[in-house]
Amino acid sequence: MALPKHPAKLDLGDYLPYLVNRVGTIIADQFGEEALAAHGLSIAMWRVMAALASTGGQRQIDLADLTSIDSSTLSRLVTRLVRLGLVTRARSTSSNREVAIKLSPKGGALVAQLIPIGHEFESAAIAGLAPEELMTLKRCLRRIYSNMKARPAAAPTGRPKRAAV
Amino acid sequence: MALPKHPAKLDLGDYLPYLVNRVGTIIADQFGEEALAAHGLSIAMWRVMAALASTGGQRQIDLADLTSIDSSTLSRLVTRLVRLGLVTRARSTSSNREVAIKLSPKGGALVAQLIPIGHEFESAAIAGLAPEELMTLKRCLRRIYSNMKARPAAAPTGRPKRAAV
Repeated sequence: MALPKHPAKLDLGDYLPYLVNRVGTIIADQFGEEALAAHGLSIAMWRVMAALASTGGQRQIDLADLTSIDSSTLSRLVTRLVRLGLVTRARSTSSNREVAIKLSPKGGALVAQLIPIGHEFESAAIAGLAPEELMTLKRCLRRIYSNMKARPAAAPTGRPKRAAV
Repeated sequence: MALPKHPAKLDLGDYLPYLVNRVGTIIADQFGEEALAAHGLSIAMWRVMAALASTGGQRQIDLADLTSIDSSTLSRLVTRLVRLGLVTRARSTSSNREVAIKLSPKGGALVAQLIPIGHEFESAAIAGLAPEELMTLKRCLRRIYSNMKARPAAAPTGRPKRAAV
């Protein structure tokens, strides 16, 4: 039997994927319950609206990049947001074949109400961190994300390669 | 109208909750698909098994602390793990009223197979980070988690206060 490359134990309290995941989850759960649930929005729907608020109308492919949501999931989310009257799909002004996604006036008003709450959650989360710690934290998180995006999928186990996240 | 305390826009690419959440999600999705799905395990079930592997049998309340999973969710997860034959519930040796949760031999064998894969995922994630960056990253993530745990819930919106995550 080959010697294991790694220790046979795993200390969750020092295991980076656990430390990251529980932070991502606790913020998303609290923000979801306190700010989004009353409006019927999920975290992913909120992300789409925040991206549209900051950048204006977007083609769906660019919106997928901005939000790290894969295109088939994004398509369903946009359909739900359209049904809620929060976004619209319209022919692009630059190309008749492209569809641009935009906030509706109702969607714009809602996201303008949610963005300050989003900033408050961020402030609460990072309380006590020094500015240079925050810079390091963000830089590391961007690097880890690109490491994982670039990672080759492991030996297939009979299922299709994973979809983009 | 009161002046907003925060800017009216939100740049997702510099917004910490987004940067954390997408990292937590991409690692969990890849590990889930490549290592866990074939065994019928979720990330939360894997966490429970990893905690049991590292610490031995645990009372459910201590297991909740170790895994940051709330007790009612944990109770359901343990039931599923028992049905899969991966863990057992047994009377504690120290108190007849307490139930200790342990890995079964089958569960121990499976987690011994998964832990090295877990370490490989962590190594892939943190590739290129300097040791002191990794220390800062972990320290910041622990601080943010405790900030969010200690955070008072916002003004209630008619729903019960959130459950512990």
